[in-house]
Amino acid sequence: MIKIALDAMGSDNAPFADVEGAVLAAREFNYHITLVGNEGLIKKELEKHKPVPSNISIHHASEVIGMHEQPVLSVRRKKDSSIVVLSNLAKEKKVDAIVSAGNTGAMVCAATLKCKLLQGIERAGIGIVMPTLKGPMVMIDGGANIDAKPSHILQYGIMASAYSEYILGKKSPRVGLLNVGEEESKGTGFLKEAYSLLESSGLNFIGNVEGRDFFVGDCDVIVCDGLVGNVALKVTEAVAHALEEMLKKELKSSFLSMIGAMLAKNAFMSMKKRMDYAEYGGAQLLGVNGVCIIGHGSSTPKAIKNALRVAGEEVVKNVNQHIVEAIAVRREDK
Amino acid sequence: MIKIALDAMGSDNAPFADVEGAVLAAREFNYHITLVGNEGLIKKELEKHKPVPSNISIHHASEVIGMHEQPVLSVRRKKDSSIVVLSNLAKEKKVDAIVSAGNTGAMVCAATLKCKLLQGIERAGIGIVMPTLKGPMVMIDGGANIDAKPSHILQYGIMASAYSEYILGKKSPRVGLLNVGEEESKGTGFLKEAYSLLESSGLNFIGNVEGRDFFVGDCDVIVCDGLVGNVALKVTEAVAHALEEMLKKELKSSFLSMIGAMLAKNAFMSMKKRMDYAEYGGAQLLGVNGVCIIGHGSSTPKAIKNALRVAGEEVVKNVNQHIVEAIAVRREDK
Repeated sequence: MIKIALDAMGSDNAPFADVEGAVLAAREFNYHITLVGNEGLIKKELEKHKPVPSNISIHHASEVIGMHEQPVLSVRRKKDSSIVVLSNLAKEKKVDAIVSAGNTGAMVCAATLKCKLLQGIERAGIGIVMPTLKGPMVMIDGGANIDAKPSHILQYGIMASAYSEYILGKKSPRVGLLNVGEEESKGTGFLKEAYSLLESSGLNFIGNVEGRDFFVGDCDVIVCDGLVGNVALKVTEAVAHALEEMLKKELKSSFLSMIGAMLAKNAFMSMKKRMDYAEYGGAQLLGVNGVCIIGHGSSTPKAIKNALRVAGEEVVKNVNQHIVEAIAVRREDK
Repeated sequence: MIKIALDAMGSDNAPFADVEGAVLAAREFNYHITLVGNEGLIKKELEKHKPVPSNISIHHASEVIGMHEQPVLSVRRKKDSSIVVLSNLAKEKKVDAIVSAGNTGAMVCAATLKCKLLQGIERAGIGIVMPTLKGPMVMIDGGANIDAKPSHILQYGIMASAYSEYILGKKSPRVGLLNVGEEESKGTGFLKEAYSLLESSGLNFIGNVEGRDFFVGDCDVIVCDGLVGNVALKVTEAVAHALEEMLKKELKSSFLSMIGAMLAKNAFMSMKKRMDYAEYGGAQLLGVNGVCIIGHGSSTPKAIKNALRVAGEEVVKNVNQHIVEAIAVRREDK
């Protein structure tokens, strides 16, 4: 049975959303889920979900790393925090995958320190599965590494390609480099160097892409440094949220449009579902020697359940093995 | 009378959209508009708008810089291109403002070369007026300068603050630095240096903001380098477009939701208008010694008209004078 450890103290609504998500996943999937965190609080939360599935257990951790704590310092100091304990379980191979909706920086730091990086990988990157008009796309890096080197960008391309191929089922995934224009001559020295590395990488590199190419779906992987990726990701969420708010306000402004909104409600819901990160199961921390999923702080129980589902899929499909092989092939070529 | 030169060869639909926009503006505002570009093509286009307003004239330019031409090279080589001729008219003070929906990089380059920069400004920046849930906000730099230094970011803050105050009417505009998190310790060395410059600038600096703060409206100015700003801007457009497409598709999927969509149509239109760049009149090239507006390549006649309207407003309100004074005050403080 696949064993997954979940940070029960991770989400903004911890342990409520985390524990309920674990219960939903334990009922639906044949995984063993270990809830890591304050035993008393977790037990109390589990009381609400009787009968508690037998494939759920608790691993006590006395500390919590808050959302705004400095990652490196907090990982070093809080050795019994849920995030550090989670990473130790992965390091000791007591679980096959770990999932947390907690402090992203701390999770990146703890997982990298404890599990180490895959052979040939210099930095872990956060891969985000995003919706497009033609199905899901992976953007990497969503913010694990804001001081990236061109070689990191190449490695992100290799890792996300493997993810796209083996998890999302894309044949020969098209990889684009996020830049300010499509021409090869565009961008900073950093981007030009990353371009040339990707061009000679053997990946299906389609050249520079722009912010406007998000959601179009003509690209299966978009690579960028963690600063740009983080802004792109958060702006996406912000636009979607603002449009929804504006539309709600407009729809309430007249009787006819209110009736219209009621009739069109299913369409709205269906669109929201297609744009919903919760459906896609969170962000992948690619590059660490283990399977690590980072959920959104505002994760709902459904989002936690989906993150657990995806974690199990990654274990079964062994993406890391494919990444290691892809890196090795490129090394031999040289 | 305010004199504005418009690149008639600028937009993707040139000279159609550009000329029609000029005619609309000439009829509505008390400006003299000089259309710069191929005289034969412009005359043919003007034929469609009889009677042609008397406050429109033509200034022939034999060349055009294409959307994909390399900015510096094309400005150097195509001395009789509409963009270079436009910039010369501004340099020679034959017009009060210039407007183009053509190659952004070439316009930045030509305007900087010909008009020179304002005293104390090291780099021009593109200021974009964006909608938020609480009114318009200025983001700078939208892509004029992708190799920015921290001092450029400070100057962007000063320029956009002046714009927000004198054009958008905000008192003591709140300035945020776009980063990956709100804490002062976040970001690259570059961002930390920019933070400290902004903090001691005397501007109403509210600290780091994130991509999720776009559209919320708790910030009047967001500063960032041109690479991050360009991605943020284009991602915004991409999300809005993708959501519209998804919603259209969903609304066509059932009879009831189609009826709903018809009833809710005014609400959609009103929302689209609030999100529409065309309403805001394009991007401001801030920092050059002159008024220069850069329109979107896909500008409609209405967008061109609004860009001309905003250009005139900037001339009247003399934003540049305010920028020069703000820079001078900060120099004296030191």
